[in-house]
Amino acid sequence: MWKTKTPGIPDELFERDENVPITKEEVRVVQIAKGRLKPGMIVYDIGCGSGSMSVEAALQVEDSGHVHAVDYDQKAVELTKKNLAKFGISNVSVISKNANEVISGLPDADAIFVGGTGKDTTEIVKMCLDKLNPEGRIVIGMIQILKSVDITQVTISKSRKTSTGTMMLARNPVTILSATKN
Amino acid sequence: MWKTKTPGIPDELFERDENVPITKEEVRVVQIAKGRLKPGMIVYDIGCGSGSMSVEAALQVEDSGHVHAVDYDQKAVELTKKNLAKFGISNVSVISKNANEVISGLPDADAIFVGGTGKDTTEIVKMCLDKLNPEGRIVIGMIQILKSVDITQVTISKSRKTSTGTMMLARNPVTILSATKN
Repeated sequence: MWKTKTPGIPDELFERDENVPITKEEVRVVQIAKGRLKPGMIVYDIGCGSGSMSVEAALQVEDSGHVHAVDYDQKAVELTKKNLAKFGISNVSVISKNANEVISGLPDADAIFVGGTGKDTTEIVKMCLDKLNPEGRIVIGMIQILKSVDITQVTISKSRKTSTGTMMLARNPVTILSATKN
Repeated sequence: MWKTKTPGIPDELFERDENVPITKEEVRVVQIAKGRLKPGMIVYDIGCGSGSMSVEAALQVEDSGHVHAVDYDQKAVELTKKNLAKFGISNVSVISKNANEVISGLPDADAIFVGGTGKDTTEIVKMCLDKLNPEGRIVIGMIQILKSVDITQVTISKSRKTSTGTMMLARNPVTILSATKN
């Protein structure tokens, strides 16, 4: 359970699996913020991985909203379900399929998060845009840059204690692309 | 007015003054998230600058909470008041004084944001810690690293259109220090 209004659940509170990626706390809050979520919204989390984005989005859209989490990796789906249970979340549906087989059957969305770097990203983004309501938001993380919109590159370094003090440990840059539907 | 539940108001929606710094959108959402805000909380915004942090914090703590914004620069105070009016915020008090003259008289805080790089930062942080409730959060932006806690360095690059395409423009790294009071 996480009771703050602000997003930003510490990474270490999530169940983890070394084979399933997690969207790190600071990148996650920037992505969630770019989604501009409100209670009642319909959200997709495409490539939900560990489910950390789904958990945060579900808390922001509240029980009047719903999150559709999709991942083709059965391990990710199981981990997402574990994390939903851990945080007491009941407004997320988890779908274990390729995104391009699923998206057309989902209800229209107010915000869509696309993670991962699968080879069908361009097709998936196109399908997502078809389902996105006017003024809806799409937020695409960790991909090659597509074309001009609002692009933010975040490079995070985190402190780690060493025997003699504190050092900064670099993480890889993440490119976050966000746009509003016309 | 800004109606999303998530923080992250675009920079361009704020009134600006070239002599008053603004905490940029992506850094702002990470700082707000590190504050772990809830409705009803008492928050300080020390060195409020343009007031962008105060506006976001006020929306997160809602009308049952309150933000005390402090800046020694009269221009910053006026700009903060303008932005509070622009976003229809009524739960922020703006104080035009040096922070070290003000803090001891404020009610105890649940979350404290310290911006700016004034020469009295260490003294101000110490005064803030005295006022911080147990489990309260302090988030310190844009300063030299003090000592081990949770330190995140965020380096942001933003897209800018050029005549031939889109380029990434670097911004200076920001060090965000956050900690929970014992």
